[in-house]
Amino acid sequence: MQTYTVALGDRSYPIYIGTGLLSNVELILPHLPQKRVALITNEIVAPLYLEKFRGALEQAGVKVVQVVLPDGEKYKSWATLNTIYDALLASHCERGTSIVALGGGVVGDISGFAAATYQRGVPFIQVPTTLLAQVDSSIGGKTAINHPLGKNMIGAFYQPRVVVSDMQTLLSLPERELKAGLAEIIKHGLIRDESFFSWLEVNIERILAREMDALAHAVFRSCEIKGAVVVSDERELGERALLNFGHTFGHAIENEFGYGTWLHGEAVATGMALACDLSVQMGMLGKSDSDRVCKLLVRAGLPIEVKGVAPERLRALMSVDKKARDGKLHFILLERIGSARIRADVSPSALDRTLAQVF
Amino acid sequence: MQTYTVALGDRSYPIYIGTGLLSNVELILPHLPQKRVALITNEIVAPLYLEKFRGALEQAGVKVVQVVLPDGEKYKSWATLNTIYDALLASHCERGTSIVALGGGVVGDISGFAAATYQRGVPFIQVPTTLLAQVDSSIGGKTAINHPLGKNMIGAFYQPRVVVSDMQTLLSLPERELKAGLAEIIKHGLIRDESFFSWLEVNIERILAREMDALAHAVFRSCEIKGAVVVSDERELGERALLNFGHTFGHAIENEFGYGTWLHGEAVATGMALACDLSVQMGMLGKSDSDRVCKLLVRAGLPIEVKGVAPERLRALMSVDKKARDGKLHFILLERIGSARIRADVSPSALDRTLAQVF
Repeated sequence: MQTYTVALGDRSYPIYIGTGLLSNVELILPHLPQKRVALITNEIVAPLYLEKFRGALEQAGVKVVQVVLPDGEKYKSWATLNTIYDALLASHCERGTSIVALGGGVVGDISGFAAATYQRGVPFIQVPTTLLAQVDSSIGGKTAINHPLGKNMIGAFYQPRVVVSDMQTLLSLPERELKAGLAEIIKHGLIRDESFFSWLEVNIERILAREMDALAHAVFRSCEIKGAVVVSDERELGERALLNFGHTFGHAIENEFGYGTWLHGEAVATGMALACDLSVQMGMLGKSDSDRVCKLLVRAGLPIEVKGVAPERLRALMSVDKKARDGKLHFILLERIGSARIRADVSPSALDRTLAQVF
Repeated sequence: MQTYTVALGDRSYPIYIGTGLLSNVELILPHLPQKRVALITNEIVAPLYLEKFRGALEQAGVKVVQVVLPDGEKYKSWATLNTIYDALLASHCERGTSIVALGGGVVGDISGFAAATYQRGVPFIQVPTTLLAQVDSSIGGKTAINHPLGKNMIGAFYQPRVVVSDMQTLLSLPERELKAGLAEIIKHGLIRDESFFSWLEVNIERILAREMDALAHAVFRSCEIKGAVVVSDERELGERALLNFGHTFGHAIENEFGYGTWLHGEAVATGMALACDLSVQMGMLGKSDSDRVCKLLVRAGLPIEVKGVAPERLRALMSVDKKARDGKLHFILLERIGSARIRADVSPSALDRTLAQVF
């Protein structure tokens, strides 16, 4: 087992990464103010891991209220959130009751927002069971639900007390979701660490074959990279925005096709390909580096183009992105593999040339 | 004008108290990251102050998106909150747009929660126009909406950037609401400052006659007392709970009769009378002190008893109170006028004797 600590002063917390951690509740117990948790998962994860995890908690004397949500991004909504509030209130959960999220990004995001807002905040614990959640959404305290007018528009910054990432849960993950998680891992190499990107080029097949040590290294290194960025800029006033590389385009794609049609990681992969192209259009990045990125994305089984939407439509969707400031779109662009920068000066013509590839 | 600063490190903020401050937007401008605000008020306050306040902002070059909510505690709901989100998104409000609450406690609480959660947090400014909001809800960063199963059950701790309390807005306040605000002022004397309580005994008629200097002193002293408690315990882990004196009973009363039938301050006044009685039953407080409290509440035009609800029903409602811990009710009781304590050891028989007065 490896441990990465997100160093945020009195809100610091450990991320445990290893195999078979789901039954090791000793990792969680020290973080519970009361031996009472609300365990939130979804209908896909429940039959796989709920009984085992719940049993381990109960054996340690923890009382468990369970909430099983429907599966899918479209349920990351107020209505679903309200079913969590209802269950917590119906069970008389108090401020000392911890909320534990067992599942992927949707479960983690909505459970985290419930924890941030139930009775103005209760302790929160993340047990991510998808690659995307382990390398991205469980790190850094972003919680949210979607609004009909935009993804993650309603949310809070709220750090968990502990994150437990069990690599064995990835064995049950559908192929497509594994690949989607890889998009964020690749992103971490792109924005901060060329050597990690190179390691991924060498080891991509081992990850796709779900070799435990390759997965654990990819997850741990992602936690280190994302964790360092989050620590330097918890509330996304500056550097943290680099983590949104590929996301301005990606969110627009997800918005256009409806949440869930494209997986988040797939939209981000295509978004990264477009952002690389825009970086080339802006004269920041060499064409060969852009090609190198696209090649790895394709080897990871990820899409790098989008069809069936007009360029003008994507542009309009991007303008409501949270990363907009003073009405100006800020793009995260690459200056080389391993180094990203925020640019507010993207010319309409450069963006046009990139969007011309969308059809 | 007087200034009290809530000293919360990098989240410190000033509370300005004076007359005619509504047109003095210089107090607000330094706190706006962009010259753009979403101004949230309600249908009662809008005809009185919206045009004047909005005009002053616009004259200073600030762009204003306005949202006028329906009036009343029953609109402190998810549905109303969603109308705020909708307006913000429809107007493409970004993270640099500040939310300004112009109104009473309901407007402040729901606007604050919108600010805490819109795009994971935007700057928030309070311009309270009721006595209750000026002496209580605008101080300390508690934001919330109600849930059908409980008041303020969904919320966040989120501090404003600045609070501007204009005493002149109290001239238009209905008599009943002025009195309800007085309940929290009296509470501040009771829990922390006997000399302020004595000052209130002497000056209660001047406050009821809305003499500006008496109002300003009562508001300022309340800000000092509540501010000091908040600074020592921002997230209500200990001492801040003292501010809930009278609220465990009070919330149960509000819950039973439906939000808005009793004003919050009226329920708190009756709750304080019951809490004083319970303090006497517990042998903590002399009967003469309890009588002295009730006498001032009555002089302030506030109720001190509740009819039409069974004692068992009130007890059940109290058990879902946020102040419950480990399933045990914690009561805030008085040991003398000017000093409150948290007690978790209230005997069922003592509580029975107090509730026997409810009929």
